[in-house]
Amino acid sequence: MSLDHASAKPHERLAAHLEAEMGAVDQLIRERMASRHAPRIPEVTAHLIDAGGKRIRPMLTLAAANLCGYEGEGHIKLAATVEFIHTATLLHDDVVDESNQRRGRPTANLLWDNKSSVLVGDYLFARAFQLMVEPQNLDVLEILSNAAATIAEGEVLQMTAAMDITTSEDTYMQVIRGKTAALFQAATESGAVLAGRGDADREALAQYGDALGVSFQIVDDLLDWGGASGAMGKNTGDDFRERKMTLPVIRAIAKADATEREFWARTIGRGDQGEGDLEQAFAILTRHDALEETRVEALRFADHAKTSLASLPDHPLREMMRDLADYVVERIA
Amino acid sequence: MSLDHASAKPHERLAAHLEAEMGAVDQLIRERMASRHAPRIPEVTAHLIDAGGKRIRPMLTLAAANLCGYEGEGHIKLAATVEFIHTATLLHDDVVDESNQRRGRPTANLLWDNKSSVLVGDYLFARAFQLMVEPQNLDVLEILSNAAATIAEGEVLQMTAAMDITTSEDTYMQVIRGKTAALFQAATESGAVLAGRGDADREALAQYGDALGVSFQIVDDLLDWGGASGAMGKNTGDDFRERKMTLPVIRAIAKADATEREFWARTIGRGDQGEGDLEQAFAILTRHDALEETRVEALRFADHAKTSLASLPDHPLREMMRDLADYVVERIA
Repeated sequence: MSLDHASAKPHERLAAHLEAEMGAVDQLIRERMASRHAPRIPEVTAHLIDAGGKRIRPMLTLAAANLCGYEGEGHIKLAATVEFIHTATLLHDDVVDESNQRRGRPTANLLWDNKSSVLVGDYLFARAFQLMVEPQNLDVLEILSNAAATIAEGEVLQMTAAMDITTSEDTYMQVIRGKTAALFQAATESGAVLAGRGDADREALAQYGDALGVSFQIVDDLLDWGGASGAMGKNTGDDFRERKMTLPVIRAIAKADATEREFWARTIGRGDQGEGDLEQAFAILTRHDALEETRVEALRFADHAKTSLASLPDHPLREMMRDLADYVVERIA
Repeated sequence: MSLDHASAKPHERLAAHLEAEMGAVDQLIRERMASRHAPRIPEVTAHLIDAGGKRIRPMLTLAAANLCGYEGEGHIKLAATVEFIHTATLLHDDVVDESNQRRGRPTANLLWDNKSSVLVGDYLFARAFQLMVEPQNLDVLEILSNAAATIAEGEVLQMTAAMDITTSEDTYMQVIRGKTAALFQAATESGAVLAGRGDADREALAQYGDALGVSFQIVDDLLDWGGASGAMGKNTGDDFRERKMTLPVIRAIAKADATEREFWARTIGRGDQGEGDLEQAFAILTRHDALEETRVEALRFADHAKTSLASLPDHPLREMMRDLADYVVERIA
């Protein structure tokens, strides 16, 4: 891949820099998603894998390992592990959310059925665990199995917190760490640990992954409200309709008067939504600066991601990882 | 627990012999099914765990480790791992099969919803992986992660093989190894490996677990047809109604004439079942000795389980494990 580096986006520059290794990761993913006995497994998996996605998580594993001077082959396996865990959670999420679309294509639960998504997701989780065992590094296994538990706990918490207007900001952070940041963190931290780096580098890369993931998810939640500038359009308001308690709403509820509180209790708590409610919600968020405050939080985490890298070796990959943190918040800057 | 050893069943004698250790396993299960953040998790898990079940799988891990002279605490963790994997698969199975009852109680998918069963199942899988990492034994991790993949692959295969009257006996064996035998085998083999035993003992206990599990599942499938004596009753015929391809039907189809073949194609292949069809199916199975042949297969595997133990040390646990293999087939003897 040849790129004009001045104009290429950070994840494109990472992909170009890591091209050979990402090719090996893709190859390994294809080998391991095969099933000698059950052809349904590669069918369902390929549907999702072929649809693309930016492969940010496996790239982060490779980048962290390379930045830490790793020279073996184990990081290819960990990168594939991370992508398998991600793919498995997407399959199960789409069943739980009853989604119809993912990456611009019909979801697997729609094309096949819920059963296939549940069981193929289980298979990919199991394949991920087989892969992560292969580099024979117990610290890496601890990181990745802990991340898997945090992810699953976050999913359950998200399900039970939805529609509950008393959801705290702590709970929200726990949900988005499970949903997004835990796997980002495990991706970068496991790269450092595999490379045999000491606690300082390990901690720096763990912090980077966590902060990048948190920032990424807050941005996503803010964009569902049209971003800080509040450009509501046809792709906005899904979270409101699905009664999800994201940061803008939590901040607005913290400042709500009695009338506004009743508005949130009706629309999110009881799910009684009618014409004009989305616009009304938006007006309340704006009145309390909730969108602007959310933007500041996303920037704060992106900034923390960047400063976490300061102690690491000067390296082109470090610059790309820094730029990636900027890029994540660029859409809301 | 005090038992009259002459009349107690083998799994009751195992439970009495392993009482203190099984208490520690139960304690660990309760600790690890907790969630600091999501109370839904212990609610759903306790519903299933408290309903009982014989805890055969964790007892097999403890028995194998003890029989091999293990003296540490790691086998408690592996036993809890095995029970967590089993519980997670039950939660997902009930979603996939749309079941309403399990262990005489309403299923979790009925009491809560499918979402909770999928996500709490994922959490228990993740907790199982955390637990299995803790004894820090890479060989054990390889055994258990391979078993998890075999289980998930078997589930997918079972889903795609149902309603397909060309399903081979090989496919059936693969399905029941995934469904039952893989975890039995991992339970016993990991006990031996944790105890640091050589390849011969490891292989003997792996063979025992596999053969016991296969025998156990064939008996289950035979009893759904009323056993070899063919006592059809209100608890029989479920597999026929659900169009499952179990060993009796596979054997009967192998010997079917054109008329019988069309009968199976209609009732199992196309799901067009009416009054008298179950009785007709039963008559065909009897005519071709399919139930008797299935019984012989179950006995053959039970016998293999017993002979696998021959090379292991003379020990009360070995006798109970032998008797357990007899007990599994007793209902069809």
